[in-house]
Amino acid sequence: MANETKIPYKIYLEESEMPQAWYNVRADMKNKPAPLLNPGTLQPMTAQELGGVFCQELVEQELDDHTPYIPIPQEIRDFYKMYRPSPLVRAYCLEEKLQTPAKIYYKFEGNNTSGSHKLNSAIAQAYYAKKQGLKGVTTETGAGQWGTALSMACAYLGLDCQVYMVKVSYEQKPFRREVMRTYGASVTPSPSETTAVGRKILAEHPGTTGSLGCAISEAVEAATSQEGYRYVLGSVLNQVLLHQSVIGLETKAAMDKYGIQADIVIGCAGGGSNLGGLISPFVGEKLRGEADYRIIAVEPASCPSLTRGKFAYDFCDTGMVCPLAKMYTLGSGFIPSANHAGGLRYHGMSPVVSQLYHDGLIEATSVEQTKVFEAATYFARVEGILPAPESSHAIRVAIDEALKCKETGEEKTIVFGLTGTGYFDMVAYEKFNNGEMNDYIPTDDDLAQGFAGLPQVD
Amino acid sequence: MANETKIPYKIYLEESEMPQAWYNVRADMKNKPAPLLNPGTLQPMTAQELGGVFCQELVEQELDDHTPYIPIPQEIRDFYKMYRPSPLVRAYCLEEKLQTPAKIYYKFEGNNTSGSHKLNSAIAQAYYAKKQGLKGVTTETGAGQWGTALSMACAYLGLDCQVYMVKVSYEQKPFRREVMRTYGASVTPSPSETTAVGRKILAEHPGTTGSLGCAISEAVEAATSQEGYRYVLGSVLNQVLLHQSVIGLETKAAMDKYGIQADIVIGCAGGGSNLGGLISPFVGEKLRGEADYRIIAVEPASCPSLTRGKFAYDFCDTGMVCPLAKMYTLGSGFIPSANHAGGLRYHGMSPVVSQLYHDGLIEATSVEQTKVFEAATYFARVEGILPAPESSHAIRVAIDEALKCKETGEEKTIVFGLTGTGYFDMVAYEKFNNGEMNDYIPTDDDLAQGFAGLPQVD
Repeated sequence: MANETKIPYKIYLEESEMPQAWYNVRADMKNKPAPLLNPGTLQPMTAQELGGVFCQELVEQELDDHTPYIPIPQEIRDFYKMYRPSPLVRAYCLEEKLQTPAKIYYKFEGNNTSGSHKLNSAIAQAYYAKKQGLKGVTTETGAGQWGTALSMACAYLGLDCQVYMVKVSYEQKPFRREVMRTYGASVTPSPSETTAVGRKILAEHPGTTGSLGCAISEAVEAATSQEGYRYVLGSVLNQVLLHQSVIGLETKAAMDKYGIQADIVIGCAGGGSNLGGLISPFVGEKLRGEADYRIIAVEPASCPSLTRGKFAYDFCDTGMVCPLAKMYTLGSGFIPSANHAGGLRYHGMSPVVSQLYHDGLIEATSVEQTKVFEAATYFARVEGILPAPESSHAIRVAIDEALKCKETGEEKTIVFGLTGTGYFDMVAYEKFNNGEMNDYIPTDDDLAQGFAGLPQVD
Repeated sequence: MANETKIPYKIYLEESEMPQAWYNVRADMKNKPAPLLNPGTLQPMTAQELGGVFCQELVEQELDDHTPYIPIPQEIRDFYKMYRPSPLVRAYCLEEKLQTPAKIYYKFEGNNTSGSHKLNSAIAQAYYAKKQGLKGVTTETGAGQWGTALSMACAYLGLDCQVYMVKVSYEQKPFRREVMRTYGASVTPSPSETTAVGRKILAEHPGTTGSLGCAISEAVEAATSQEGYRYVLGSVLNQVLLHQSVIGLETKAAMDKYGIQADIVIGCAGGGSNLGGLISPFVGEKLRGEADYRIIAVEPASCPSLTRGKFAYDFCDTGMVCPLAKMYTLGSGFIPSANHAGGLRYHGMSPVVSQLYHDGLIEATSVEQTKVFEAATYFARVEGILPAPESSHAIRVAIDEALKCKETGEEKTIVFGLTGTGYFDMVAYEKFNNGEMNDYIPTDDDLAQGFAGLPQVD
């Protein structure tokens, strides 16, 4: 089958072809994402206010909505070369198995120890912290990919790394925790007694197994209460999407190199870091009127912020210590059902992705987790890669679109983001293998509870 | 640092540069590895006898010690393209951190779901089984890398896959087991009640946690007692080393492409599959008088078959149902101390590697596991890859050789095999991180017990 075409199974760019600047899609957006608001004054956060929490250069990147290309410092580009370029894979085996005329490509970000794309922003954020002369950084982690990525970046640069890990993950994923420790990070189950907000949450909800929003609150408090520390975040923020644009830029460069034109671009969506990074250059071309693409964000039916959420200002964290962001949200109190195994459990969505969706530049769809794991298992057997549950949301929709092509006979070119591997998600796979996995779709009443907690801003 | 040289961080061959034939080092060996013997008659195993256990074409490969190049079937080459070529990585960051004038390269085989090089032979063995019209294959697995690789290959080809997993691993590594199940394999803890030899071992040693040699006996019995099944093995055999030569061939091709000349080639050694595959083309040049290299096999001090074993005929399995092989061995009854966490725990060594060592073509050294995990952690933090404990034996010696160059000022080029990743070995890493890991070196008396069980053949 490979003989019929000149396109290899895996397209690797040369080092000299790797991006030298990140692409800032906000520069091409007519409707800019709304600014972060100070939760006390409800006024836009100033650079000075943000500088208390984030590193200075990252604050500049966070606020910069007009510079289209921001150079990637040489040190970060050198680090990228250790695990990038990531391959753009032609899914020949999947196409053959599906008997589809569609051409399927995926950008695979799982070939590094963090197991995902998260490392792209972790090294950038750690680099600027180091450059500013800081001692260390704090963060939260759920499934553990972001915490692992940050601990790798900090180990490389000699920075202290303090991770607040959602307690249920801390207990269910001891191996993730141990990878972070191997990279020298300290890992604290959240909520914990080490912060005021953690103690408050524990007092109000004894026995809670924690949430991302809660761990964020603790990590922010830890950063602001220690000299020489700042907080870093693995998704949602503009700066993170900026760094993750390296995914889309490499994808585009690989496609251009072989004259491949995408019809559909698909990414899974939790906080929006991978999706935003993957689609940025494609959306940019749409915004500039240079090309058109169908772009699809895929989210879990059990945590449907884009497809069923409200576009409103909301808290980014449970403790309500962080700035407010205007985004599609289910309310900061929303927590997906305990039987949800598929990742992507954040209550909100990156303001950039939210604005693009609001403006009709991208579509969104939601899928149920048993369908996601069916696709994951099918893909693993055919393409040899065991995908992360998060990534498998995109696989599900890519397969569905390829099957539509089989019906219509259209030879569409489908590109999706395979964000990472599922080696640390075998508890969820086991549940699926044993036929014990269920679906859960929140009722309108469930969602109403989350919406009731939205702050009154607009 | 990368700017000072034209050699990229990662050398990927083009698909068109990938090997089209395996290299059979036996063809160039003056002293051929000794033949397998029938355990009953002590006569060399005939092709017909071997055909009862192994697929026909694999038997031919097993016995062929004169054909230097054996073509890789197109189907296998297509499968290889899903996860190969593997990168030859220039360890710029490690060199800088060590402040060594040495140039360090590693061939990284961990970028596939089996997490190691094992897939190279798994797909080949499954392919020939499928071609012969078999229903399925049986095998044993210890740490689980081989079992995972075989289950991936069988899932791809639609073959049944029955894995006997050493009981202690089955219980301690439920996630490995679950990956195999995700690929559709059935996994049985060994020793089990499903075979006569398993029942016998359980009766004699109630409560045993199993061993590789014991799981091999069960898998062989399962293969020979079911219609349409054959047994496959992940290491030791000549055929496995033949398939694994793809590692060395790619390494050599990548080096030749950039005009890199190795001085030292280092590989970890358990059964010898990775080591034999990596070094084959280099040994071939030595045998043909075309070049000279220092070649170092690294084994655990707790299971020192090359450095402290005897070169003699021995059983390959505990149940003594398999043919005898002439190899460096600690005796088929030898089991490493329970505190040994570093893999590479087989009592013997591939006959090819054993003969090369006996003839002085390669060196061998042993390292203690705390030193191995020190190197593993150091490497993870500097190069970003969390290595398998097995692979870390080679890392340890590569670092030591690079530090010698620092003392002498020699700019040697060191190449080592990084066989895989350690994502499923976090229990061992945790032990090390907590300072709870000890070393164990068997006494001469310990070894004497193993030697006492050697069969009288020579």
